[in-house]
Amino acid sequence: MYRDRVRLPSLLEKVMSAEQAAALIEDGMTVGMSGFTRAGEAKAVPRALAERARQQPLKISLMTGASLGNDLDKQLTEAGVLARRMPFQVDSTLRKAINDGTVMFIDQHLSETVEQLRNHQLKLPDIAVIEAVAITEQGHIVPTTSVGNSASFAIFAKRVIVEINLAHNANLEGLHDIYIPTYRPTRTPIPLTRVEDRIGLGAIPIPAEKIAAIVISNQPDSPSTVLPPDSETQAIADHLIDFFKGEVATGRMSNNLGPLQAGIGSIANAVMCGLIESPFEGLTMYSEVLQDSTFDLFDAGKLSFASGSSITLSARRNAEVFGNLEKYKDRLVLRPQEISNHPEVVRRLGIIGINTALEFDLYGNVNSTHVGGTRMMNGIGGSGDFARNAHLAVFVTKSIAKGGAISSVVPMVSHVDHTEHDVDILVTEQGLADLRGLAPRERARAIIDNCVHPDFRGPLNDYFERACTRGGHTPHILREAMEWHINLEETGRMLAAV
Amino acid sequence: MYRDRVRLPSLLEKVMSAEQAAALIEDGMTVGMSGFTRAGEAKAVPRALAERARQQPLKISLMTGASLGNDLDKQLTEAGVLARRMPFQVDSTLRKAINDGTVMFIDQHLSETVEQLRNHQLKLPDIAVIEAVAITEQGHIVPTTSVGNSASFAIFAKRVIVEINLAHNANLEGLHDIYIPTYRPTRTPIPLTRVEDRIGLGAIPIPAEKIAAIVISNQPDSPSTVLPPDSETQAIADHLIDFFKGEVATGRMSNNLGPLQAGIGSIANAVMCGLIESPFEGLTMYSEVLQDSTFDLFDAGKLSFASGSSITLSARRNAEVFGNLEKYKDRLVLRPQEISNHPEVVRRLGIIGINTALEFDLYGNVNSTHVGGTRMMNGIGGSGDFARNAHLAVFVTKSIAKGGAISSVVPMVSHVDHTEHDVDILVTEQGLADLRGLAPRERARAIIDNCVHPDFRGPLNDYFERACTRGGHTPHILREAMEWHINLEETGRMLAAV
Repeated sequence: MYRDRVRLPSLLEKVMSAEQAAALIEDGMTVGMSGFTRAGEAKAVPRALAERARQQPLKISLMTGASLGNDLDKQLTEAGVLARRMPFQVDSTLRKAINDGTVMFIDQHLSETVEQLRNHQLKLPDIAVIEAVAITEQGHIVPTTSVGNSASFAIFAKRVIVEINLAHNANLEGLHDIYIPTYRPTRTPIPLTRVEDRIGLGAIPIPAEKIAAIVISNQPDSPSTVLPPDSETQAIADHLIDFFKGEVATGRMSNNLGPLQAGIGSIANAVMCGLIESPFEGLTMYSEVLQDSTFDLFDAGKLSFASGSSITLSARRNAEVFGNLEKYKDRLVLRPQEISNHPEVVRRLGIIGINTALEFDLYGNVNSTHVGGTRMMNGIGGSGDFARNAHLAVFVTKSIAKGGAISSVVPMVSHVDHTEHDVDILVTEQGLADLRGLAPRERARAIIDNCVHPDFRGPLNDYFERACTRGGHTPHILREAMEWHINLEETGRMLAAV
Repeated sequence: MYRDRVRLPSLLEKVMSAEQAAALIEDGMTVGMSGFTRAGEAKAVPRALAERARQQPLKISLMTGASLGNDLDKQLTEAGVLARRMPFQVDSTLRKAINDGTVMFIDQHLSETVEQLRNHQLKLPDIAVIEAVAITEQGHIVPTTSVGNSASFAIFAKRVIVEINLAHNANLEGLHDIYIPTYRPTRTPIPLTRVEDRIGLGAIPIPAEKIAAIVISNQPDSPSTVLPPDSETQAIADHLIDFFKGEVATGRMSNNLGPLQAGIGSIANAVMCGLIESPFEGLTMYSEVLQDSTFDLFDAGKLSFASGSSITLSARRNAEVFGNLEKYKDRLVLRPQEISNHPEVVRRLGIIGINTALEFDLYGNVNSTHVGGTRMMNGIGGSGDFARNAHLAVFVTKSIAKGGAISSVVPMVSHVDHTEHDVDILVTEQGLADLRGLAPRERARAIIDNCVHPDFRGPLNDYFERACTRGGHTPHILREAMEWHINLEETGRMLAAV
């Protein structure tokens, strides 16, 4: 059943149960696991580890690519396994533990984790746990639906546990392009100049003797839960596509727009779906996660190539895509997240980065992570990797939340993840603000006039105008700057009178 | 006198007075001028422009490399010439006009201005005004003490005014390396892999017929005004050098540390001076501005190569260095600021970026620009270009200001230029906080214990501990988060009781 998946015969003796493999993980260890946007995470070993920890307490520091699926972060949190966690997560149980201070969470730009490991600025993993579709004749590891940080974790770790997941189609092999930057001070340029370039290997090259255990599993990735477009996300998509049409009309962008990156979530998904009906042709993606919309765009004949670090699909799309992978395979590549998100490549290619904001302020500073300035939602993810170096840094959000109790546009954000220097375009269902080349007072005018919900436009304009009378390059009334957030915390609404 | 400096004879007929050249600049134009950290700015034409505007009002949008010397921003502001200004400045008169809303100032990452011009996201300059030591036989422009954005301004502008400044030593020729990234979508990697690499041309290549005027000037750059180390800046330098020693001892850094970048100012200067007495050898710099300390390090035999975008020296050092330039010339190069600050190169080389903070907060967010959250000081400059992609992002400041009325470490910064994701090391005269791999609550502990002045340590610790009882990944008490800033605004002191 799995002998064709472990093609170096000497490794067959390393096949063992998940429980046996999990026993290699000791209290206090640093562990690097595969998994990115709930795709391609090791499944059996972390579950066995959580079960063991319920009997025999242990704590580890856990690094992944990004989020894990199959409730693994939940199980590990409930079993008390996680002392430290980085660089991203999306699990509500883990989120609670992060916010109550039980788990130390390091929220990182997704391109930076392995760079810091390479420089020994973070502790190297003792063990890597990597999901694979196969181990090659050379003992190299072929990842599944994500690459994430798996390659560098396997290279840096002393020992590697491989989970061969039979639920994944074996023909995923050939999809991956594993490129690892060389060491400083003799590092050379990343030789990627086009979205479709293949610059690395098809599998993760490690010495076969580092493989300490092979576990056979058979469990699919969790399906994605992206909501279909609603009238508001559709309006956001329409505003952005109208803007793109204008850029093409003035010659600032070509009719293929340039490589697109879209974050996770329903709004980014609506924007990508909107491109199906658009006049643009020959689109490309250079993104982190490839979602249903990527394949919808392929099927519509709009997309010519997609590069990512993972593929995360809905239950419906999953069987269609992976059951017919040959249809897409020559137009797809999965890369390490260090490369999918690398500032060098993002700047070179001129990416259009579309990411979701929790809230933004008058001047275009964006909060992507912290509810009420204090409580972590998921993490910054790759949004900063893209926004800083993008050709266009676009942030999208609905203008209000919680039935109008919350305005997503506020006088001052309660937490800053992206400074106004890194934000070009803001879009809500109300409209689009093009902030390029504007000074802060001009940015405020564009944002108030275009993005704010009518219920909050008057109060925000009032704040801005009173702030301007006090002067300053970026006018504020510090005594009132946090008031909407404080009101929300204390009364459940940002404005009493609305 | 200047015929050996204008080596294409057909251009000699373009020689005219500054007043005649300034007349080419019309009301409403966008003008790109040379000048970076008060080095190499065009001097005669902007002065003539200011004089003319006093008689005959006109307004322009002015872009430079960074700051101008010789009070030019002051004169242009007083004459009412500046409608818009980007991407950096240091002049107190202009600062006032920016803060009262008279001049629209666009505060940009210094690597990004010409990228935005290249993509037509900013209006291209109608005219460029570039200081030069010479015009070559091909009509190419040899810059003086800075490259800044001059090359791209000259390439993008319809017409170019060249100021041949006889006050600069002609042997500056040969110091510059002009490399311009190719256009997307066929852009290739920047082929720079070592600090000392020369990858471009010695002069700015433009068609000679674009040169509309040549003005002969004879006025030196303004001298720098860096203060010598005092006991506090010396303590900051000592803490950082001790930290470097530790990194070398553990093998995380080699004995040449890696390429150094140091911002402008007395603290960064003290750190660089501190390296003279350090055990490190074979140092290199890959920075924006090369100051006195660069040449002190050369003379001490500590520095093997320095790459920058400008040279700004004190009156004392100016004659010594430029009078003996042959002594240093083979160990020096000046590049466009797009290349000196380019994220691709900064990440590849693994730069140690040392920049000055106005203030930072409990969690390591840094304010580099806005006094009291509203009033622009100078601009973000290159600090973000370096901090985001550096091997080590270091920010330095004295722990208190105004005789103890102000703490530079606050509960929440009043403005964010560098988020906690981008800040590795914080240093005050009190000590050094190493934030690498720490979660926010751990960062706060390291900062309070190491960086805060004793007068503010108790109150800050009290805030942090009370915030932690309320929970959150990044605990805050929003009602109090801005209180120290509000106190300062209203009473002149951050804490009443101190």
